[in-house]
Amino acid sequence: MSASPNDTAFERLSKSEPVLVDVGTALDLLPGMTPATVLTSGPAMRFAEYQGGQREALIGGALYEGLARTRDEAITGFESGAIRIGGCHDFGAVGSLAGIYTASMAVFVVENRAYGNMGFCNMYEGHAPKRLNYGVYNQEIRDRLAFIDGTIAPIIGAAVRALGGVPLAPIMRRALNMGDELHSRNTAASLLFARELFPGLLALDDVPKADMDALVRILTEDNYFFLRLSMAAAKSIADAANGVTGSSLVTAMCFNCCGFAIRVSGMGDSWITGPHASVEAKLFDGHDESEIAWMGGESPITETVGLGAFAQAAAFPLQHYQGGDPMTMVERNQELYRITHGEHPLFRIPFLKFRGTPTGIDVRKVVETGVLPQMDIGIAGSGGGQIGAGTVRAPMECFTEALARLDAVASG
Amino acid sequence: MSASPNDTAFERLSKSEPVLVDVGTALDLLPGMTPATVLTSGPAMRFAEYQGGQREALIGGALYEGLARTRDEAITGFESGAIRIGGCHDFGAVGSLAGIYTASMAVFVVENRAYGNMGFCNMYEGHAPKRLNYGVYNQEIRDRLAFIDGTIAPIIGAAVRALGGVPLAPIMRRALNMGDELHSRNTAASLLFARELFPGLLALDDVPKADMDALVRILTEDNYFFLRLSMAAAKSIADAANGVTGSSLVTAMCFNCCGFAIRVSGMGDSWITGPHASVEAKLFDGHDESEIAWMGGESPITETVGLGAFAQAAAFPLQHYQGGDPMTMVERNQELYRITHGEHPLFRIPFLKFRGTPTGIDVRKVVETGVLPQMDIGIAGSGGGQIGAGTVRAPMECFTEALARLDAVASG
Repeated sequence: MSASPNDTAFERLSKSEPVLVDVGTALDLLPGMTPATVLTSGPAMRFAEYQGGQREALIGGALYEGLARTRDEAITGFESGAIRIGGCHDFGAVGSLAGIYTASMAVFVVENRAYGNMGFCNMYEGHAPKRLNYGVYNQEIRDRLAFIDGTIAPIIGAAVRALGGVPLAPIMRRALNMGDELHSRNTAASLLFARELFPGLLALDDVPKADMDALVRILTEDNYFFLRLSMAAAKSIADAANGVTGSSLVTAMCFNCCGFAIRVSGMGDSWITGPHASVEAKLFDGHDESEIAWMGGESPITETVGLGAFAQAAAFPLQHYQGGDPMTMVERNQELYRITHGEHPLFRIPFLKFRGTPTGIDVRKVVETGVLPQMDIGIAGSGGGQIGAGTVRAPMECFTEALARLDAVASG
Repeated sequence: MSASPNDTAFERLSKSEPVLVDVGTALDLLPGMTPATVLTSGPAMRFAEYQGGQREALIGGALYEGLARTRDEAITGFESGAIRIGGCHDFGAVGSLAGIYTASMAVFVVENRAYGNMGFCNMYEGHAPKRLNYGVYNQEIRDRLAFIDGTIAPIIGAAVRALGGVPLAPIMRRALNMGDELHSRNTAASLLFARELFPGLLALDDVPKADMDALVRILTEDNYFFLRLSMAAAKSIADAANGVTGSSLVTAMCFNCCGFAIRVSGMGDSWITGPHASVEAKLFDGHDESEIAWMGGESPITETVGLGAFAQAAAFPLQHYQGGDPMTMVERNQELYRITHGEHPLFRIPFLKFRGTPTGIDVRKVVETGVLPQMDIGIAGSGGGQIGAGTVRAPMECFTEALARLDAVASG
């Protein structure tokens, strides 16, 4: 008996081997990138359609890259097409929140050694609530980005090359035993990655001590450093599973300021769009729900490959950060087995007696059960910056539409 | 209203501040140590009373230190008193399994900055099943010990001094959020410690690259490296709580080849001895229960301060190593609140909604409830080496005897 299309897609999800092989610039590495392109989260739209924080982030990106000297110049540039807008996913990358990429930004290069494809992600800005990807841009943010891109990233790249690459799946497997779900919590994975990088760092002779000290802090103090590696790894995994004719497994979930979108393996790179996700958030003190703003996000690529909310019972410490008690996290996690094709052979949850994480969201099962995929995400505020974190659920509309299209294709 | 003696002892358990301040030799650092003394776990006995692996470990220690050239010379030396035997606890230290200390061995120096006292522990031998502390001694074990004591320990000491000390409580607190209980699992703590040490290592210019690479491996690959720091920290915490007149809280639990023993705060340094602990173990493949051998152990100092089995619901990954399913671990952990004085303010368990670990075993509550303190330990085999791991329970006899003595003192 031959494997079903979903078996094939699931096998690719579960047998991928993501390895960090290099760090370089978006211009040099992302297929199709140009000096005057700014990438952002979600299916790409015309500039006029971007609103709120995501629009501000695009403008900030143009200013950071020097594509405009003023805010008005940036707007004119976007409107005229002199500055081009792209969707990260279409350039092999994934964006966090607004997900801004400009040509000079540093990106991680993750090679899926089992299938030969690449996944890219740029670097974490740091823990300050005001960040470019939360729709804010100013001198402080510019300086931080320039330090990450110009000083920190090249050191990491040199260490990674000295090591001949850093396999990420073993780190991710271990991190799930250490309280991470690799979306909203990356504490252990960041430490494990730092530990793998140490011998490479020790091999570098020409790094100023202050830069090295800053790097060690950045690698481990924010607890979010590894998220971008988790995202790049997940992108390389999900893309390997994309494009299997007849498969109803989801290969991307993301959103921009206008709504949610998914990709399904059997329909390749096309997007199925819908309304925004529904939110169950724990906001930081001093904020309320009226402030919640959607400014994009592609980190749900982690849920797409069996991590994040699909591994939340591995990450009980998250109850503090995003609300919810441990048994609720367990129940939510268990519910997701009803909509997935299989259990991940490597990513396992200690509390569930090392059961593999629910992996490979099947749009058919989502429609049949009514169980919506969950995601662990950071919540942006309309005033810019992060105002909380929580669990969101993808909108049913994307799945009913995807199923209708799959059935239409199948029936010729 | 003034604090009760148990309140005072509990406060010392919960407000201690262990800081790793140095690494040096047992001879230089342990109060009362001499060149011809060999320390071992449990209340000290005459040489003739030591049997099995603990006797073999003592002989191995004498050979390692050059106190004898042959096994027979070692035996003669111990019998004549030319080689002196001491109990680790009486020298400010705690021993793992047989717990052998000789004069030239490297020890961690942990200062309890809240109360001014010190705790010491020597270093982990590595993960080979055959080790001196499991009752085996040969050329390979000698070479490993000499490398640890002579090469690795001095580098760590230099890095620690360069850093001005490494506070351990923050590492321990975080590790409990990352799957450790700091007795049988120290994976996260070892990584966190390595991360803290790294800037200190970078500050050292004269370390050969091969030694530095070996050190980075040793710090993190065995996942047990931090246990000795956890033990030294726990010793410094427990000793601070010892000697409170009228207090019925336990300040040490340990065993030698002849039986179990406890210290109680209100009775200072005296030992209350009893039979061996009862075992619920998961043995490695190819071993059975008839092989289980007692060759000493003082790592239950961790349970004494609210860690180990008292934090097992923080460490679900241990189910693989020592058996038991997650909900059994939760139930066992919860039962221990019935015999402890309070909840640790810093050491908290995510799955129990960040409840503080049960801390300060009260001999009176143990006798009243019949709930025996549990400990997570490694299991030694009669043929030498580790053959498994599991949970053991302290024998009731120690607690009834301690209570009788406390009551006798109280009634004058």
